[in-house]
Amino acid sequence: MKWLSTEEQAAWRAFLHATTLLEDHLDRQLQRDAGMPHMYYALLSTLSETPGRRMRMTELAEKTKITRSRLSHAVARLEGNGWLRRESCPSDRRGQIAVLTDAGYEELVRTAPGHVTAVRTAIFDRLSPDQVKQLGEISQIIADGLHEPEGADVPWLR
Amino acid sequence: MKWLSTEEQAAWRAFLHATTLLEDHLDRQLQRDAGMPHMYYALLSTLSETPGRRMRMTELAEKTKITRSRLSHAVARLEGNGWLRRESCPSDRRGQIAVLTDAGYEELVRTAPGHVTAVRTAIFDRLSPDQVKQLGEISQIIADGLHEPEGADVPWLR
Repeated sequence: MKWLSTEEQAAWRAFLHATTLLEDHLDRQLQRDAGMPHMYYALLSTLSETPGRRMRMTELAEKTKITRSRLSHAVARLEGNGWLRRESCPSDRRGQIAVLTDAGYEELVRTAPGHVTAVRTAIFDRLSPDQVKQLGEISQIIADGLHEPEGADVPWLR
Repeated sequence: MKWLSTEEQAAWRAFLHATTLLEDHLDRQLQRDAGMPHMYYALLSTLSETPGRRMRMTELAEKTKITRSRLSHAVARLEGNGWLRRESCPSDRRGQIAVLTDAGYEELVRTAPGHVTAVRTAIFDRLSPDQVKQLGEISQIIADGLHEPEGADVPWLR
């Protein structure tokens, strides 16, 4: 067991501050402008990019890196708003498909500019092109590491 | 309003995946080993580094970047475990001070090695010294931006 060095400690603290503040900021922005937390927005946005705006629930959980129970809860809420609907899967009787409705797509179109502006103002307008590249690379390394080893305790298999 | 470029979009997606997976991973690790979420650990750890292991509640909320109501809730739970206690502030009758108890300090000493190992394995063992520096700089830029302008909607003033 090795403690963090002074540099690692400083980076870790800054990272925790940045992610805590950013999550709060984006949740507030989306609650105010769309009445939903950031994670719900990510679900609608992920579905909007797929052919037919639909995805199996198991795949949607993996794409958004959340647990199945958290996804079920979110989908039920979004269904209540009329922004999503569930369909049964033709090839697997126990499987379910989440489908973005037209109303959900319109809500996304309405709220996306404000959300992208918030993300840009908080992050991308402040970073150089090199820093954007570094942020992407570092994030990918961390995300990849948390998928390992095979059989890792990933949220979407819970 | 300007959409994200392909590079920005890729970096943003990787960042969201990394932070979502990391939060899940560290919460699971601390729940398993210490019976508390990551945020509670951060409170104990922050207090442990102050003189007298004590801090005004308002300052503790600012240091950990959370809302006062979230802090009150966490402190009540940690007080129930015997890891914290609240004292009234001699200079301000409405102010309160959070104090890390000996039992809380011992719990931190017991759980810190496992937690630091989890942070190191997920992040710092995977990054080069340059990347650690970049992560610190980028995180600091994002955190600083979310404190601006004066009077920004920061969590600890809510």
